[in-house]
Order: sequence, then C-alpha cells, then structure tokens
Amino acid sequence: MEMYDIIKTKRDKGILTEEQLEYVANGCADGSIPDYQLSALLMAMFINGLNHDETVSLTKAMKDSGETLDLSAISGIKVDKHSTGGVGDKTTLIATPLAAAMGVPVAKMSGRGLGFTGGTIDKLESIPGYRISISTEEFINLVNTNGISVIGQTAEVATADKVLYGLRDVTATVDNMSLITSSIMSKKLALGSDAILLDVKCGSAAFMNSEEEARELGQMMYEIGLSFGKKVACIISRMDEPLGMAVGNALEVKEAIETLKGNGPEDLTRLCIELAGMMIYMSEKAATFEEGKASAEAALKDGRGLDKLRDLIRGQGGDESVIDDPEKLPGAAFSKELVCACDGYVNRVDGMTIGTASMHSGAGRREKGDEIDSGAGIVLAKKSGDSVKKGDVLCTVYSNDEARLLDALEEAAKAYEIADSKPEKAPIIIDRIGI
Amino acid sequence: MEMYDIIKTKRDKGILTEEQLEYVANGCADGSIPDYQLSALLMAMFINGLNHDETVSLTKAMKDSGETLDLSAISGIKVDKHSTGGVGDKTTLIATPLAAAMGVPVAKMSGRGLGFTGGTIDKLESIPGYRISISTEEFINLVNTNGISVIGQTAEVATADKVLYGLRDVTATVDNMSLITSSIMSKKLALGSDAILLDVKCGSAAFMNSEEEARELGQMMYEIGLSFGKKVACIISRMDEPLGMAVGNALEVKEAIETLKGNGPEDLTRLCIELAGMMIYMSEKAATFEEGKASAEAALKDGRGLDKLRDLIRGQGGDESVIDDPEKLPGAAFSKELVCACDGYVNRVDGMTIGTASMHSGAGRREKGDEIDSGAGIVLAKKSGDSVKKGDVLCTVYSNDEARLLDALEEAAKAYEIADSKPEKAPIIIDRIGI
Repeated sequence: MEMYDIIKTKRDKGILTEEQLEYVANGCADGSIPDYQLSALLMAMFINGLNHDETVSLTKAMKDSGETLDLSAISGIKVDKHSTGGVGDKTTLIATPLAAAMGVPVAKMSGRGLGFTGGTIDKLESIPGYRISISTEEFINLVNTNGISVIGQTAEVATADKVLYGLRDVTATVDNMSLITSSIMSKKLALGSDAILLDVKCGSAAFMNSEEEARELGQMMYEIGLSFGKKVACIISRMDEPLGMAVGNALEVKEAIETLKGNGPEDLTRLCIELAGMMIYMSEKAATFEEGKASAEAALKDGRGLDKLRDLIRGQGGDESVIDDPEKLPGAAFSKELVCACDGYVNRVDGMTIGTASMHSGAGRREKGDEIDSGAGIVLAKKSGDSVKKGDVLCTVYSNDEARLLDALEEAAKAYEIADSKPEKAPIIIDRIGI
Repeated sequence: MEMYDIIKTKRDKGILTEEQLEYVANGCADGSIPDYQLSALLMAMFINGLNHDETVSLTKAMKDSGETLDLSAISGIKVDKHSTGGVGDKTTLIATPLAAAMGVPVAKMSGRGLGFTGGTIDKLESIPGYRISISTEEFINLVNTNGISVIGQTAEVATADKVLYGLRDVTATVDNMSLITSSIMSKKLALGSDAILLDVKCGSAAFMNSEEEARELGQMMYEIGLSFGKKVACIISRMDEPLGMAVGNALEVKEAIETLKGNGPEDLTRLCIELAGMMIYMSEKAATFEEGKASAEAALKDGRGLDKLRDLIRGQGGDESVIDDPEKLPGAAFSKELVCACDGYVNRVDGMTIGTASMHSGAGRREKGDEIDSGAGIVLAKKSGDSVKKGDVLCTVYSNDEARLLDALEEAAKAYEIADSKPEKAPIIIDRIGI
C-alpha cells in the first residue's frame, strides 16, 4: 500500500477503505509515514470529508494503534463521561461522586489542560497528597472498593491520535466533525467503559460555536459509539461564559466542594445533576432518566455525593480534610479585584477571555509541560444578567506572581460587557441526544 | 504573519494576498516554514484552487525567492523555449540552432531528465568535451559571438519552487494548473528572456492527458506570462508516442544531427520547424509566423541550422566532428532487437512505456543523482500506422549493461500494440495559443 495513493484518493473525493485507514494509523504510531504526507491527507480529509464508514474505520484504527484498557474486573455497567472542553468545567468533580454515590462504578482517566481550557487532573492535583499516577491494578481495586477512582492517563492509548492531533493543531485541520469524532471516540473506546456520556459544549467559549454544529458533532459521536456496541448519550450544554463562578485549579475544587454541599451556582448545579442523572440511568441504577436525576438530586441533598468525593480523595492518598476546611487547598499570595466602571447590567462575560486571563494568572498552560500555579485563577462575582453599580466588584483575580496577576486582570477586564438593559438568560442545557 | 492563518484562508476557499504568498515563498526558501504546514497548504491550494491574481503573486514570489538572470548585455529579443516534458523530445537541439541561424539570440539554460523523460543537458553531455557548466559571463559572450549557447542551470533560480516541487511530488499535489504554471513560469521568468515559447505536451505520455487540460494549462501560462510584460506563445503538441524514432542521449543527438541534415522523421521535423518559426517570429526576425516558418525551413534545407549546431558545440568545447561522423558519439556494447510476433499494423507505441524502457536501459534516472549511460536507449523502427509482418524489427534496444538491456527489452515489448487495421494518424500540432 502506498501513502501517495491514499492521499490521492481522498484528494479526489474517493472513499478510503478500512485497510487504508489502518495503514495510516499504524504509520502514525510507528512513525513510518512522514509528517508532510499526513498533513496533506488531513487537509484532503478536512475539505472533502469522511463518511460514516470511514469515520468508524478511522476511529477503530486509531483505537487499535495504542494500548486498550480491560475494565472487566469491575462489575456493573461502567460509564465514562467526556466533555469537549470549556472554561470552569469542574463537572467531573461533582457529577461522578454523585453517580458513584448511587452505585455507578466510576473508573475515570482524565487529562490535563492546555490553553484556555482546564483539565480535571490539574484540578485534582491541587489537593495535597492526591496521587494521579497509580497502577491499573490499584485503579481497578479502588473502583471495586470505593466505587470511584479518577486518575491521569497512564495507558498509551490511541497513539496515532497523538501524532495526528499534533499536526492538526498547526495545519488548521482541527475543526472537522469526523476528525474530532475519531479523535475523541478512539480514546474513549480504548479506555474500556461500557457506556459513554458526552457533554458537547456549545457557544463562544467552545470549539463548536453554533447549536447546529454542536448537534451535528453530538449526533456523529453518538452514532460512531453505537456502531462499536456501546451505550451512548450526549448532552449539548451552553458554554458562552464560564461554568459556575470559579476558574482555576484549587478555586474550582473549592467550588466543587461547595456545590456538593448544596451551595453551588445554579448553572453548575443543574448541569451536574443532569450529567449524574444520565450516568445513573445509563448504568441501570435507575429505570428512567428522570429517576436518575432525582437520585442525583437526593445524593446532593443528603451529602452522599460529598461523602463519595471524600472517599475519592482518601483513596488516592489526598488530604480529605480539605472537604471540611477548603482553606487547606493552595492559595494565592496576591489578589486584585476588577471593579465596574458604570451602572447597568452584565450583558456577557466572555468565557474564552476569562479562560485566557486564568492562563495568564498561572492557572493554565501556554504550552505543554508548563508549570501550573494551583492557587491562581479567577472568581467571578457577577455574570450575565446581574445588575451592577459603579464600584461593584466584577471578579477577583488570584496569583502567586504579581506580574502575572496584572496581566490576568488586564485580560479579565476585556471579558465584561455592560449594557443598559437586562439580557435574557439562556438555559444551560440546550439539547440531549440518545435519551 | 502566521502560516496557520494562510492555511486556514485557503482551506476556507479564501483569496491569498501578494504579501501572504511572498511569506510562503520566502519561508520555503529560508526553511523557516515546516514541511507539514507547506503540504497542508499545497493540498488546500490543489483542492480549492488559486485565481489569476493569486497565481501571478505566487509566480512572482517564487521567482523572487532565488537568483534572477540579467541578459540585457545580449542585444535583440531573446526567446526562451520550454517543453512540459516528453519522451524523445530533442527539439531544443534542432529548433534553437534553426532559430539562431536566422538571427534569434538563443541564451538557453536547460535541465536534466528524471524518470521516463529525458533532459537536454544529459543529451548535450553525451557529446565529447561539451561543457554544460560555464560562467554567466562566458554564456553571455557565447551568445553575442555565436548567436547561441545552451548550458545547465547555474543560477539557483526559484528556490521556493525546489522545496514546493519536492513536496508536491510526494503529496499528490502535482497536477494542478496554477501550481504547474507558477512552478514553470517562476523559473522561466527568472532566466531573463524577453519572450517565452511554451510547448505543452498533450497525450498519454504527457502530464496533460486531454486536449482540454493542455489548452487550459497553455492558456494559463500564456496569461501569467503576459501579466509579467513578456511576449508569450504556446504550442499544444501531441505526446502519445515518442517524438521521432530515437530515445536516449547520444541516440537523440544523432537523430537531431540527421534532422538538421534534412533526414529527420516527419513528426519531429514538423514540430521543430513550428517551434523555430515561432521563435523567429517572436524575436521579430520575421514579419509573420508563416514567414518565420519559411525561414526555419530554409535554414534546414541549406544547412545553416546544422552550421549553427556546429557553432554551438565548438563554442562550448565539444567535438564538432560528431556532426560529420556521428559514430564518434558514445555507443553501446550490447544491443537487441524487438521482433514482431504477428502481421498487422502498429496501433500504438506507448510513449511512457518506451520512456520507462529507456530508463531501464541506463539512459535515464530512476532517482536524482543516478549515473547515466550516454550510449543507451531505444531506436524505434516502427511507429503507429506502420504495417508490420511477423519477424519485422519493431525497435532496437541499446545498453552497456547486459542485464539492463534485457530489462529494457522486456519493458519495450509492452509498449507495442498491433492491430488488424491501420489506425488514423493524428497530427503532431494540436493547437496554438497567442499567435
């Protein structure tokens, strides 16, 4: 088989076979296909598209290009949750303990953040002692004992995707439905769960800006998941402004604890109940989705969710006393408030700008491998729809580096748009697929 | 300026600016843009196309990315000739002496062959003593003294094209009109002539298989040349079977000498008169193209063309006695005849297969830098339309390596198609543009 012919076929709008896509994925994984041929193919795929069968074949080939996890030693229907990425998205820290509290086995491998989006692993690492790197055996034991374990990705899954993603990032070939789907689903399928819950973010601070695109991506991932024999469901949720009020690692852990105590922001709480309810239903711990949601609400109300978060932290060697005393989490030496310059209503808080400001503060990475300031970040005081008066605090920026603090403050100021009239508040849940 | 944005613009069918295309060409030339970004851009250009202005800008940017030649020290209208490449194409060795004989200043830089096509420089190098590498000063002096000089490319012209062509070759992005045009025209424009005559080959042994494609390419090169203020004309000529009877370096020089003596094959003679006539007209040494053709015919008939070839060879240190005694040119230790197995008519002789057979014999290069066997090649005895009887010689293969000879013979046998009835002979000249 020749890579040249594969490129030519897709260039001329032809259909690639399973064997050809396997050849590509294996050639990525073993480094035998040069970058310049892969990027020419990616551009041809981007422009001319991949059909359903090609997307299935590429997903399978990428999944098989790396290690795959066997979770069969865990009994019950294991549900994985994936978010397409957003600012202030700490739902894993809230929804998975709620689901685990209702008997859903949670065996979750999460990632690190890059650019304006955060990563669950970075957030968990802000908890003193929390070990994100443990062996697969210990991971499986923890799920069987505590019902929940959340760790960093240990297995080298979907090796081909690492190569292709690296190239897509620098060749303007990221935003293609089939390429996004195969990238996400190959990794999710390699991780060995029985069911996959997808949270597709939609809005100005998400990869998918329009509802139409988000629905299309959700539908495609749903169909691809089904064709691999998995249970799949998808939630389309709004991501224009940050989710909740806190952005930054320890700051988000604090907000997650508060939310599990019943004191969380309304948007975050609603989305977490939705996600946990869906996980409970998919794991067959509830007869209907509505029942699942009711269970999740109950677990939030009576503290079983919070207890499960405690189990999670203790299980992985973390200091569980942060639950009762969140001030034990890393803090920031410096902080500064952003103050409103006029009267009116907050019309919007741009999520991407707040994400970038948070990165400037030290909470995020500009490039892979950058160190993170666990105590840095931003806490919003006002979001869209809130009335403000001149002098009111809009948000507070935290950092352990004074120069970064000022950078972050300057950026955060760009995020706020003040208007004369109150804007309409859009609901956090836009749609569901597969339920 | 960011390469990412340039790729994204063309990916989304946008129009690239002159500045953007300059950035790309300069980034190719100085190596600052990585291959994988260039090949993604090439694929986007291939699929989404470049408009007239973009093609002009890319051509200009590529021309300016390398050295440019100043031929102003040569008086008169200097006409360059370019062929898009074919099998047995020795027209430069015949048409340029004919034009020079009529006063056209011929200052020509030619290339080497690769794959199934030959190169003028390889042919000239088969003449004992002929120096293809001389200084630009000597080159200009020779044209001023003898009226003609043909040398290898000394200047590092269109550096960006070298990089892009190397990538196009392995990423299935060669066959695009705008990319072909900018590649050819950037080099031609860098070489400093006043007029450019293009011989666009069309047929099964050419890059352009259909007349429609060949016309489209010719028209585009014509228009691009005009927008740089050059005189341009284009001939579309047939390239299904080899041009003339000889394929191989010394073998083609012999055929060129015979043609200038008036004993050439009809197709080759006709095309050379056409090309020389056009050069004479473009150089304003004839009032009309028809007059130019008549001059070229006269120079062929009375031996002035042959004398000019003699001047050319002598001027560059070659052994001019090969003109009178072509057997002094390199020969081959081994030869073998391909014999016809049945009675009938030659329906076609596939040019590409004969070109490949010639490469096998040692006359061509599989890869850049391969050594060439100057005496190797193929001489056809029969071409399409000729009647054949069982036992007739179809062609003779020559080589200095017995194993290669057999390889070449086996390949050459695939080129011949014998039929019961006589096929119609298609004319060598298909069309003209700009005349």
